[in-house]
Amino acid sequence: MFCLTVSTDAAWALAAARDLDAVLVDHAHCEMKAATNALSLAVRWPSDLALVRALTELAREELDHFHRVVSFLERRGLPLGTPPVDDYAAALRKATRALPSHDLPPAVDRLLASALIEARSCERFKLLLEVLPAAVDEELCEFYRELFEAEARHYRTYVDLAIMASRLPEGDAPSVVGARLRAIAEAEGAIVSSLAERGDRASVHG
Amino acid sequence: MFCLTVSTDAAWALAAARDLDAVLVDHAHCEMKAATNALSLAVRWPSDLALVRALTELAREELDHFHRVVSFLERRGLPLGTPPVDDYAAALRKATRALPSHDLPPAVDRLLASALIEARSCERFKLLLEVLPAAVDEELCEFYRELFEAEARHYRTYVDLAIMASRLPEGDAPSVVGARLRAIAEAEGAIVSSLAERGDRASVHG
Repeated sequence: MFCLTVSTDAAWALAAARDLDAVLVDHAHCEMKAATNALSLAVRWPSDLALVRALTELAREELDHFHRVVSFLERRGLPLGTPPVDDYAAALRKATRALPSHDLPPAVDRLLASALIEARSCERFKLLLEVLPAAVDEELCEFYRELFEAEARHYRTYVDLAIMASRLPEGDAPSVVGARLRAIAEAEGAIVSSLAERGDRASVHG
Repeated sequence: MFCLTVSTDAAWALAAARDLDAVLVDHAHCEMKAATNALSLAVRWPSDLALVRALTELAREELDHFHRVVSFLERRGLPLGTPPVDDYAAALRKATRALPSHDLPPAVDRLLASALIEARSCERFKLLLEVLPAAVDEELCEFYRELFEAEARHYRTYVDLAIMASRLPEGDAPSVVGARLRAIAEAEGAIVSSLAERGDRASVHG
């Protein structure tokens, strides 16, 4: 799906569906982290107002999703708790920094890594929808369908923003940025495989 | 106004109106900080979902304001730049921590300090409206009028959240939390007086 180099195995979805409460709590934290990540990028690269606008718009949407996941938690009587350590995102940031350096502005890597997180979330919601019987919670399934589309859109937005932030001529940007995206996607695939081996599956990116 | 113990002197508004561009840039950063502050409080005290909801709703509104200030920057061709050091908020946090300790949950002080920042912003937008000729930018004046009301509402929301977070019986909470609010307001007044002496006025809280 999109640029992902490794597909999530079906065991993840089955394990996640068995412990949906844990996935929901983790999901709430993921939405909040997605919002604060977008805002931290906006603050870090304030010189381009179009980038700043797009990122804060993304953050507002992530906060709306957060709100709605919190509603599901409330209905199920689940506490939010403190955010778990995000091994997936931390490993992705580290792996991205470890890639061969390039001449592109540093914002490009951060935007592409964010794109990949959205792509992975999108893939996971699709998998979850395939195993989750609608009877479990029709409203939740409908929400996941909506999220599947939103994450796909966010993925494309982040890639577009990375192309814009590259400041390369229009003709060169997609292929140069695309090559970098594939390199980060390779690293992301290795991280997902490694986390799957650990077997900690009741989370969006676990 | 509200619980503020020191009124901003008229010289601030005149200086701010003379350098409206600088105020607008500072204002954009203030809105972003207000949003990230609300989110950091939500993440820090996740056990009360009503508090979390209210704070993320506040953050979404602050991001909407941020967006709109950025539009004014764009129209005036002003760059956003990196966020300035926020002496006012830093001094307020430090002064709040230096107050005599109490038995209330730590969230109460953070929420009350946030309430005071909103109250001060509200006061400043009112002052600015009084000296800014509508002819300068009618749309900007309309925006400041709207913000004046929004900041007043946020002030009350933060005080209500502090009362809720105090976990005191309904009969006791307003007076106990109110006394703490007045203590923090005294500290805030001293900070505002000290910053006014420094004469760095072309900012929302300077």
